[in-house]
Amino acid sequence: MRLSRFHLHTTKETPADAELVSHKLMLRAGMIRKLAAGLYTWSPLGLRVLRKVEAVVREEMDRAGAVELQLPTIQPRELWEETGRWEQFGGQLLKIKDRKEAEYCYSPTAEEAITDFARQELSSYRQLPVNFYQVHTKFRDEIRPRFGVMRAREFLMKDAYSFHTSDADLAREYENMKAAYTRVFTRLGLEFRAVQADSGAIGGDASQEFHVLAESGEDALAFSTGSDYAANVEAAQAAEPAPRAAAGEALRKIDTPTQKTCEEVAALMGIPLQRTVKSVAVMGSDGFVLALVRGDHMVNEIKLGKVAGLADYRPATEAEIAQHLGSEPGFLGPVAPRQAIRIVADREVAAMADFVVGANEAGFHIAGVNWGRDLPEPDVVADIRNVVAGDRAADGGAIRLARGIEVGHVFQLGRKYSEAMGFTVLDETGKAAVPAMGCYGIGVSRIVAAAIEQNHDEAGIVWPVPMAPWAVAVCVINPKKDAAVDAAAEALLDELRAAGIEAVLDDRGLRPGAMFADIELIGIPHRVVVSERGLAAGTFEYRARTAGEAEALDRTRLLERLRGA
Amino acid sequence: MRLSRFHLHTTKETPADAELVSHKLMLRAGMIRKLAAGLYTWSPLGLRVLRKVEAVVREEMDRAGAVELQLPTIQPRELWEETGRWEQFGGQLLKIKDRKEAEYCYSPTAEEAITDFARQELSSYRQLPVNFYQVHTKFRDEIRPRFGVMRAREFLMKDAYSFHTSDADLAREYENMKAAYTRVFTRLGLEFRAVQADSGAIGGDASQEFHVLAESGEDALAFSTGSDYAANVEAAQAAEPAPRAAAGEALRKIDTPTQKTCEEVAALMGIPLQRTVKSVAVMGSDGFVLALVRGDHMVNEIKLGKVAGLADYRPATEAEIAQHLGSEPGFLGPVAPRQAIRIVADREVAAMADFVVGANEAGFHIAGVNWGRDLPEPDVVADIRNVVAGDRAADGGAIRLARGIEVGHVFQLGRKYSEAMGFTVLDETGKAAVPAMGCYGIGVSRIVAAAIEQNHDEAGIVWPVPMAPWAVAVCVINPKKDAAVDAAAEALLDELRAAGIEAVLDDRGLRPGAMFADIELIGIPHRVVVSERGLAAGTFEYRARTAGEAEALDRTRLLERLRGA
Repeated sequence: MRLSRFHLHTTKETPADAELVSHKLMLRAGMIRKLAAGLYTWSPLGLRVLRKVEAVVREEMDRAGAVELQLPTIQPRELWEETGRWEQFGGQLLKIKDRKEAEYCYSPTAEEAITDFARQELSSYRQLPVNFYQVHTKFRDEIRPRFGVMRAREFLMKDAYSFHTSDADLAREYENMKAAYTRVFTRLGLEFRAVQADSGAIGGDASQEFHVLAESGEDALAFSTGSDYAANVEAAQAAEPAPRAAAGEALRKIDTPTQKTCEEVAALMGIPLQRTVKSVAVMGSDGFVLALVRGDHMVNEIKLGKVAGLADYRPATEAEIAQHLGSEPGFLGPVAPRQAIRIVADREVAAMADFVVGANEAGFHIAGVNWGRDLPEPDVVADIRNVVAGDRAADGGAIRLARGIEVGHVFQLGRKYSEAMGFTVLDETGKAAVPAMGCYGIGVSRIVAAAIEQNHDEAGIVWPVPMAPWAVAVCVINPKKDAAVDAAAEALLDELRAAGIEAVLDDRGLRPGAMFADIELIGIPHRVVVSERGLAAGTFEYRARTAGEAEALDRTRLLERLRGA
Repeated sequence: MRLSRFHLHTTKETPADAELVSHKLMLRAGMIRKLAAGLYTWSPLGLRVLRKVEAVVREEMDRAGAVELQLPTIQPRELWEETGRWEQFGGQLLKIKDRKEAEYCYSPTAEEAITDFARQELSSYRQLPVNFYQVHTKFRDEIRPRFGVMRAREFLMKDAYSFHTSDADLAREYENMKAAYTRVFTRLGLEFRAVQADSGAIGGDASQEFHVLAESGEDALAFSTGSDYAANVEAAQAAEPAPRAAAGEALRKIDTPTQKTCEEVAALMGIPLQRTVKSVAVMGSDGFVLALVRGDHMVNEIKLGKVAGLADYRPATEAEIAQHLGSEPGFLGPVAPRQAIRIVADREVAAMADFVVGANEAGFHIAGVNWGRDLPEPDVVADIRNVVAGDRAADGGAIRLARGIEVGHVFQLGRKYSEAMGFTVLDETGKAAVPAMGCYGIGVSRIVAAAIEQNHDEAGIVWPVPMAPWAVAVCVINPKKDAAVDAAAEALLDELRAAGIEAVLDDRGLRPGAMFADIELIGIPHRVVVSERGLAAGTFEYRARTAGEAEALDRTRLLERLRGA
């Protein structure tokens, strides 16, 4: 490929409405162009990268035994009515009327359409298991489309749906898909984590997300240094705390005239924040509850909501607090409340001794508090906090935090769709059985943006080789001036092609500075410069995208270097 | 690939609503499945074929120097307003409102979107010429979707758009695209014709269609045995007729009491139909006109409409006919009208002598009519008829008729879109110039159906090898029974893979009759049977899809045969 015949169009300006680095760089590199809100044209350069991702996804799905098909993007309302999702899906579902006033939607996902296909095609257990996938355009009418292709309305998604005669077989295919996804993201050269989504069951395998790690990621993730354990912060759990120590201090009242937060109290007393306990007053279905977490921890609302009676809890009002504890906020605590209250203690708090809490009296805290001695044991002990960096993980490792961009999701759907749509097959005994179903998505176009979030520097994109539009750029200084230079560049291109290395010839005739800036901006991993001067010395100038310095290499060493790349 | 792991689902029943052979066979072979009117799911088998077509199209577009990109399927109303097509496109344009009530359409074609891309990306003549293409889903809200994917609402199309600084350069690219299309259809193994569409100018190159020939085709085509000349019947022209012979007969009145058509008159008189002339009375913008074609010819409405004053002609009423000719229909003619009339004669009629026409008197015709002697020379002589089989073509060959299915179309659009959308680039002199534009479409999904219309027999589809899902089916009799048979089939599959021949293993364990019927129905070009008996004799049973007889071949001869395929 010659850049002079390829439509490359980079710009120096960064559009004002682009916030994310990937959005800015994709626009500057000319990979995408906005047509309307959340609708992007993929330029020749952008499409090359998109197709590389698509090809890897397809290869690994095929290798995993899934079979590709293609469903229409426009799907009839009747189908979506069968599962109730015509209404439930909400505003993201783009609804359409055709010329005959029949109603359709633009597929945002395809559980209904594939189940309709399956109930027409599959009638016997002998045809199961089967995993159908497609790589096709989807549409979600985002209320606030932004971040370029990271949160576009029209996007490219790989969606797969499997059908099984048993839950055990579904679980097997679910693992098979997780392995395939791991191969996909590994092959693409991305740093990623498979994390447990908040699907309810602790350690359950019913749903897992794949995240590309990047500081700009929307999701906070926790993972362990000791194993593959990773979870969304909302779902992550630390190890059980060490057993409670014996009481060592006497209960005493501390004068804290203006100190209301744990930080302020700890600073005043000169003790670690970890010695203090935060009291959070809430109202559940059975009334007033005081939730306790360590001074350096935060209540996790999802976890707290799982405690019996707190499914729909709300913060207590000042009046409710005064009524139950006899104090104003800032000095609350579990010791000697005005009325009997229910106490939900985080596991860490339940394991503490000699701790500090509010005295339920304005201007005072109490220290040296011990369970059993100064107040009753907690009514409930549960994990109700967010993990923090440094927590011990259940596997013995340390918990680290990171931010991620969700690019894949695997689900065990069970029989939700097959049951709603009346899909059965005959089992071994000749009886109608409702197949179990799994679904598995990858955001193909989103991966392109996520990869840039993870891999860029001041000069532009730094593609992992498997996603790069070309692995090597052969840059000609002053093309069409010295025939020997042009010939050397062509010969090098031929040799690279023969070695199976994808290269592009930059024969546009730009000045070296502008040419190199373009090649760096669009993130080509390897740059080779062919010049009159280099040719005279028998060398090519080589520079890796991530290396600071260029080196002069003769042809043999250059080819060795590129082959190893 | 093993069929036991591929989802193949054939049926014996032909759905009642399928009219075309291709529709029936695609349903029976399980290539497509209807989701709703004009909306089809491509099964794994169908998608394999679709992707083969897509790959050939893509390769030839790349080879021709076009660069691929991808435009959104959903496009904003504002863009379509710029060219007036939001209204002009008519009911086929699927219009959509998003959650914010903003209006969009599902792209049925993309001149507006690509011109918008171009005006953002291209600013200098140096960036031209450029030809952008995409292979992407389109939607046309057909009022009567039918014939399966032949006339579906959602379909796969390759659309390309080129931009040029001059008409001459557009004409060059137009030829380049015609050559690329010729390579595409040739490589796919289809019998096709590039035909002149009715784009106005005679022999003009502004628009040309590519048709796959098939008896069931919607379009009637004319082509010459003497050259590449081919045209839609509506636009086809025969050679100029031979010069007019001298008058040989006297004018005489013929008694034709009940004979009103040329056929009836010629039969009564015992003369060839070619000696009679049909008179067609119409009203143009300047009043009454009598159009004359030979008795065996049909008036071509498009051609007649190009005669001055007849752009919006309509049939004359009986009252208008009586007023001008003094007769009732069935006995009309150009001789001695009641009032002076305008006569438009087809070229063939103007070259006739001694012909027969109506006498403008009920129950009578007149014979021995000659121009100049019995009536004035015609006011206009023009080609106003449809060609018929056997006509002499301008190139000296004979004209043949055929039916075709349009699968490609190339246009020279000129500046219609670039002008309407205010797209200019700076030319060599630094002045703003409006680029000329071409557009080039291929109906990728339609090709699959068209190929079947052209290539099928009673047993099913007969794929040309380049479109076949697999070139070879290796059918195992009683798989998993005799290990030697399974091993021989596997070994053969390996050898075919090494030879670059795409093969599928039919290891489903069906009875031979059912297995062979499936393999024939889905159109695999070559079938090889591996059986215990064959193995004992050291042979495989080979049969080409188009051959009547199976042959026993040893491995060497089998591989030779398949390599040559």
